[in-house]
Amino acid sequence: MIDLESTICAPATAPGGALAVIRVSGPDALRCVGRIFRPSSARRDLAEAEGYTLHYGNIVAPDGKVVDEVLVSVFHAPASYTGEESAEISCHGSAYIVGKILDLLTSAGARLASPGEFTRRAFASGKMDLAQAEAVADVISSASAAQHRVAINQLRGGYSDELRGIRDRLLELTKLLELELDFSEEDVEFADRERLGSLLDEAVDHCSRLADSFRIGNAIRNGVPVAIVGAPNSGKSTLLNALLRDERAIVSDIPGTTRDTVEETCVIDGVLFRFIDTAGIRDASDEVERLGIELTFRKISEAEIVLGVVDTTDAASQIEALLHSVTEPGKLILLLNKCDLEGVDVPGRADVSERLEVSENSEGSACARDFRSSMIPNEVTCLKISAKHGIGLDALRRQLAAKAGLTSTEGTLVTNARHAAALRQTATALSAAREGLSSSLPPDLVAQDLREAILHLGTITGEITTDEVLGEIFSGFCIGK
Amino acid sequence: MIDLESTICAPATAPGGALAVIRVSGPDALRCVGRIFRPSSARRDLAEAEGYTLHYGNIVAPDGKVVDEVLVSVFHAPASYTGEESAEISCHGSAYIVGKILDLLTSAGARLASPGEFTRRAFASGKMDLAQAEAVADVISSASAAQHRVAINQLRGGYSDELRGIRDRLLELTKLLELELDFSEEDVEFADRERLGSLLDEAVDHCSRLADSFRIGNAIRNGVPVAIVGAPNSGKSTLLNALLRDERAIVSDIPGTTRDTVEETCVIDGVLFRFIDTAGIRDASDEVERLGIELTFRKISEAEIVLGVVDTTDAASQIEALLHSVTEPGKLILLLNKCDLEGVDVPGRADVSERLEVSENSEGSACARDFRSSMIPNEVTCLKISAKHGIGLDALRRQLAAKAGLTSTEGTLVTNARHAAALRQTATALSAAREGLSSSLPPDLVAQDLREAILHLGTITGEITTDEVLGEIFSGFCIGK
Repeated sequence: MIDLESTICAPATAPGGALAVIRVSGPDALRCVGRIFRPSSARRDLAEAEGYTLHYGNIVAPDGKVVDEVLVSVFHAPASYTGEESAEISCHGSAYIVGKILDLLTSAGARLASPGEFTRRAFASGKMDLAQAEAVADVISSASAAQHRVAINQLRGGYSDELRGIRDRLLELTKLLELELDFSEEDVEFADRERLGSLLDEAVDHCSRLADSFRIGNAIRNGVPVAIVGAPNSGKSTLLNALLRDERAIVSDIPGTTRDTVEETCVIDGVLFRFIDTAGIRDASDEVERLGIELTFRKISEAEIVLGVVDTTDAASQIEALLHSVTEPGKLILLLNKCDLEGVDVPGRADVSERLEVSENSEGSACARDFRSSMIPNEVTCLKISAKHGIGLDALRRQLAAKAGLTSTEGTLVTNARHAAALRQTATALSAAREGLSSSLPPDLVAQDLREAILHLGTITGEITTDEVLGEIFSGFCIGK
Repeated sequence: MIDLESTICAPATAPGGALAVIRVSGPDALRCVGRIFRPSSARRDLAEAEGYTLHYGNIVAPDGKVVDEVLVSVFHAPASYTGEESAEISCHGSAYIVGKILDLLTSAGARLASPGEFTRRAFASGKMDLAQAEAVADVISSASAAQHRVAINQLRGGYSDELRGIRDRLLELTKLLELELDFSEEDVEFADRERLGSLLDEAVDHCSRLADSFRIGNAIRNGVPVAIVGAPNSGKSTLLNALLRDERAIVSDIPGTTRDTVEETCVIDGVLFRFIDTAGIRDASDEVERLGIELTFRKISEAEIVLGVVDTTDAASQIEALLHSVTEPGKLILLLNKCDLEGVDVPGRADVSERLEVSENSEGSACARDFRSSMIPNEVTCLKISAKHGIGLDALRRQLAAKAGLTSTEGTLVTNARHAAALRQTATALSAAREGLSSSLPPDLVAQDLREAILHLGTITGEITTDEVLGEIFSGFCIGK
């Protein structure tokens, strides 16, 4: 069970800035801070100060030495982030000072908070529901406009309101059905069966639509997966580096996005893309090679978009191999790389030029139709680029943004796998209820399916929940949140 | 000239935390924030809110989209960090959100602050003197208790008060001397020459003492320089890694301390040490080797402490080379490394054992006296260690802390090279005045020397300063401070 008796403290800012903020929350928060804080003017106790006021003064160690000049913010329950008595100490951004103040706070009766404990307390005290609490972490890690829009909508309760709307309607229907049970001997129908059927159809549709939106929501939250495929030396890594070059600085600011995997992410046109570099495609005779290629095929099937990089100097055979590997041609963007080498006389080059009708448009970059050859399906987009010289990359970015199709997405998007699963379970239970209704099953059986649907729906916003689920959710948070 | 007309904004926290704080300061600060902030309760304008109050609400883009839920702190001139109208926006710690809010603020009339601009404004508006402003950066980068104590004393004005005391006394003396000039025809002496002499002696002494404290102050601020010297493969790098292992995590939190040089710092017993790994010592015949060894000798002479690492298996010749290289034996700590190999039969080992009387005390670690040999001067400390197995490292840490001699340093310490230089110039001018007094020079000449001393003293706290000096000082700050 969550411990709400103790007063917790933690740094809420990353080390290294000009300022640092330390959060303190719990029944004793203001008294704890008051024990180590000496206000510059002779004010009353912090615990008696008005909420939403700031207090200037010194943090003083028991030996009387001043640790830092600080500003203390005072919040009284329930008007605080956690809903509890709270304070925020804004001090100089020194790791030494932050450590010292945390030491003093723990000596004064607080304990260090565990990850996500502040937000978990906010949930426990009803300041936010579970979906909102989960959005806090997403808001913090937002790197793209689309990620941010979805997360902030969820944080502000728009998503929860929508779910609660469905839930309230289902509850109403269930109560009507259950009322019929009380009068079962009189054979009355409080719930108009036709209206009930269409309401259930609507709810199934709504929940399925939300669950389906996870495909897009997940792409927005975790990045649209883009596999980069091609023969060895076709220029896959050069292309990846060229795409990331301008964006790298932004991405490195966000912890945990790229460094621990071989994937690289970047934001293009407000959408986060996740680039997955694969081993080259080639005929494999030995076991190890075959495993590498199996992995490539799996990544191709998981990707939303496949960038097939082709060395212009050996295009025909490479294109053939790519078309053979990518079973969904609509995913594929064929990139004829090294287009700057066009003038170079390479064996077999004349043949490729002829079959692909190589030519350059006035911009010298996007030439989607120019490479069309009878061997390439119409769904495949073709672009002529030079990863090395940055030619055609803007056209590629536009194609990526267009193929991702996320820029104009409005409406609610589910970004959380847990929610998507719960919504599918809700839809399944609702479908069973709908079927029961159609086959004129007794109202108690239909009501039972409805109750199950309501239960699944309730797990999303946390009306129904377990300590285990909560522990899992909040342990993924950072300390101080 | 510094621009005080515009309103400036910058993030004051490092990217990556749960919270981020954006600072806004300048005549239009509260109106700027007011343009993008929608308070949750229908309050008055931010500009009309009381100082030291907090306001909850949303940052809203011109298209009506909510960027984040934030807390805004309101400060009115002159009761703010800068002494100007100011606000602090506390938002979710997302790089995307911080970037977006800064965009909105600049659209609303603010501009991005340059490094140190907030503190420079605090200096310009008289909220702090120059020495205090310089201490802000030191407080933020403090990694050790000693660094922090010196920096916080300087920030809180203790150091400035001391300097101002000297300056006021000198000003008084000067005025008396200058008064004599007005009555020069009457040949009066307002200033008792004997008392004047002893006051000048005192001031010279005080300023010299402060200037001399820079040696210690600098060691505290930038770390006590410790050169690690020894033959190749004697275990210098292993020793450095062993010393840093436990402390590394702390050090890596502080930006700019180690990464850009080959030096490594760590805190031992509250004191910051700066370890300088050197090329090995050996006879050099070619030019390149000779340069490397010259550098080693320079580092030895600059260091406060020299760790001479000796491979126990070849101790005699290596000790000879070290004693030859380190001209100040009091600096040297001889480390007989690889003491765990004692049992191994190595050519020449018996000879070393005999001459150095190798033995182990009951702790198996510190054996300062055990290695004493007639060839080693008494001032040299000897320790038997195994860098690889961590034997004797605690004894070494104690020796380092003792040799640094900084743990018990109280009183004012000058940590800034600019201040030390100004104090030396002050002392020189005061000495000249003292000499003039002794040789009964006319009071106007003595007064001239005194005026020069006062001028140099005034540059420290910024009573006298130039834009160039200020630019240099504040450009070393981080953005948002």
